[in-house]
Amino acid sequence: MYFWDLCGVIFYNEPGASSELNSRKGGRLELNVNGVPYRSVWLKPQDPQTVQIIDQRFLPFRFIIEDLQTVGEVSAAIREMHSRGAPLIGALAGFGMYLSALHAPDSNEIEFIQKLEEDAKTLLSTRPTAVNLSWAVQKQLEVIKQGGSIQDRIRNVFYSAQAIADEDAGFCRRIGEHGVKLIEEIHRRKGGEAVNILTHCNAGWLATVDFGTATAPIYAAFDRDLPVHVWVDETRPRNQGARLTAWELSQHGVPNTLITDNAGGHLMQHGMVDLVIVGSDRTTFTGDVANKIGTYLKALAARDCNIPFYAALPSSTIDWELRDGINQIPIEKRDENEVLTIEGWVNGEIKPALLAGQGTRAANYAFDVTPARLVSGLITERGICEASESGVLGLFPEKKRN
Amino acid sequence: MYFWDLCGVIFYNEPGASSELNSRKGGRLELNVNGVPYRSVWLKPQDPQTVQIIDQRFLPFRFIIEDLQTVGEVSAAIREMHSRGAPLIGALAGFGMYLSALHAPDSNEIEFIQKLEEDAKTLLSTRPTAVNLSWAVQKQLEVIKQGGSIQDRIRNVFYSAQAIADEDAGFCRRIGEHGVKLIEEIHRRKGGEAVNILTHCNAGWLATVDFGTATAPIYAAFDRDLPVHVWVDETRPRNQGARLTAWELSQHGVPNTLITDNAGGHLMQHGMVDLVIVGSDRTTFTGDVANKIGTYLKALAARDCNIPFYAALPSSTIDWELRDGINQIPIEKRDENEVLTIEGWVNGEIKPALLAGQGTRAANYAFDVTPARLVSGLITERGICEASESGVLGLFPEKKRN
Repeated sequence: MYFWDLCGVIFYNEPGASSELNSRKGGRLELNVNGVPYRSVWLKPQDPQTVQIIDQRFLPFRFIIEDLQTVGEVSAAIREMHSRGAPLIGALAGFGMYLSALHAPDSNEIEFIQKLEEDAKTLLSTRPTAVNLSWAVQKQLEVIKQGGSIQDRIRNVFYSAQAIADEDAGFCRRIGEHGVKLIEEIHRRKGGEAVNILTHCNAGWLATVDFGTATAPIYAAFDRDLPVHVWVDETRPRNQGARLTAWELSQHGVPNTLITDNAGGHLMQHGMVDLVIVGSDRTTFTGDVANKIGTYLKALAARDCNIPFYAALPSSTIDWELRDGINQIPIEKRDENEVLTIEGWVNGEIKPALLAGQGTRAANYAFDVTPARLVSGLITERGICEASESGVLGLFPEKKRN
Repeated sequence: MYFWDLCGVIFYNEPGASSELNSRKGGRLELNVNGVPYRSVWLKPQDPQTVQIIDQRFLPFRFIIEDLQTVGEVSAAIREMHSRGAPLIGALAGFGMYLSALHAPDSNEIEFIQKLEEDAKTLLSTRPTAVNLSWAVQKQLEVIKQGGSIQDRIRNVFYSAQAIADEDAGFCRRIGEHGVKLIEEIHRRKGGEAVNILTHCNAGWLATVDFGTATAPIYAAFDRDLPVHVWVDETRPRNQGARLTAWELSQHGVPNTLITDNAGGHLMQHGMVDLVIVGSDRTTFTGDVANKIGTYLKALAARDCNIPFYAALPSSTIDWELRDGINQIPIEKRDENEVLTIEGWVNGEIKPALLAGQGTRAANYAFDVTPARLVSGLITERGICEASESGVLGLFPEKKRN
């Protein structure tokens, strides 16, 4: 019933849409899978009551698009990590609230809002520490409470979901536009040779709505025909590098080579890395970067080998309260089974393989903190700054306190 | 036919031999598996014509002892990595030459030696770059050529095989005796708390004849009732940490926790590591250490966090010709499939699991070089020295050149 209202919008997100569509994005392509451009969450073409995502649990072995028609299905998709990455689950939760509104009782405003508030709680409980998710759900609740007919509210919450997704894609696009200058500069200095970039984990478009954070400058360079090659850390224990980053780069056509997490230091010692770009899960306003476990080791090697090391992040990951990342950012300790086993493709199925002897105990810290002194700079949607309080506040002066 | 000659010796190696045996080793226990002391290569009890090894390809999932009765079987065991680790394959090759002598034509000295020389070539071809293997085979050829009856020569080559194994075990034992002082000192400084040691890869008794190199100080500490706990890097791509080091430590009763290769930096930042000990595949006389890929990253973190970082090595790994490890030590590049897949236990079998998408390319550098400036010291059979030319030559003055 809302199809007519929405169809002007859905083409924006339809996979494989025309070049006219792409021109609406300022000439920039979305990221390709099998030659077809995708975002990581979109409305189903010709069915604006269904949200679609890539079920990332099956990547890179199977490319499965999942239909989500209820907020319960969205909650399950977030909880069971069909979608992951802070910006993406924020955007997906925004669409989850839209699905909630579509199916809430529409005879009575009080009941309508009551149902939306219940569903908001369900969404919030899926990943209790995810800041973007909580921000998106709260924002959608505010939109819903702004008044108008129930049909108006449903349309508003849809547009707001779209805006949340677009804002994230826009931030990432701008991170790419700023970060690509680093690659251009190295490319010039190398006399036109390919620029070798090392990245850790997946801070790619699969973790965001589009473009990614660490990958945004890489895609921007590739789309400008700058020759780039990416060293992809496999990123144990969950192997997001091997499973997601190598896959998404290859699908878009970006040359890349998978390496173990152990290999980066050797490559840097031997001049095989020109630049390191990683994402950030949380950044102190003083420039300390919490990112997937092992990032700190790469930053140390980059410093030892005199190679620039950048973190790419939307300002939403900056924590304006924390000064000392190593001592103040709590590090999640996850299930030891993520270390003791690994998922792989065995005889045509994704299966867990046990890697250690019975009775072996493991420790599984999910993140580490790279101190600002090892970070050459932060690439944000507003530009590149020094990883320091003055650098960060220079780009975000409105955050200065008296 | 040689049983009577040899039986005084074979009991020395028999798994599970009495405490009287252990007292012959100066009161020190061999390393335990299921409560039974083992070396990594020994003569079969009551059958001195059979050499036994642990088939390490099945660890930690299955404990399989393999009988080797011919030099061909020994060659296959080395080539297919049933046994691995430079010191162990040297010792095993020594026993291989003994098996060759047992079965060589014994009617005629010329034919006897001809056969031994042929078999030596076969052994040498199994791992062409293995220095210890080549050294052991040459040594055995010299013993065989020293004259006497063929029966005398067979006995001599047996005793020499035993001596090669004993020498390696002795070196490792002494590395343990020197290295344990570092642990004692930290234990004292911590007021009796457990000492947390991080190690990378397997430089354990499974890679040597007994005790190991990096593990020797740990076993020495454990046997002296010093409380120790070991962080075991899983050591991708071949996971020798997860499969061998965690297993052998656990079998002997040493508390240990498996971690991903990414985790060590975080642990060091947070005071959870007191000491790093690794092995070395090749050491320059200036103190640069080539060891399993990823070692350099741990040395960087140790330096950044002010934690002592030691390499434990028999002097046979010191290369007296090389001054600059990073530029002079060639680094083996191995098959990309070791990165793209991993072996694990799936449905009661050891199987390879594919970790990346079809068409993904990987690079697989096997070792890296840790520059001497990051190495707190070298633990050798003669003592601990600074990782520098003067430090090394101080312990090995006979290597000084005019």
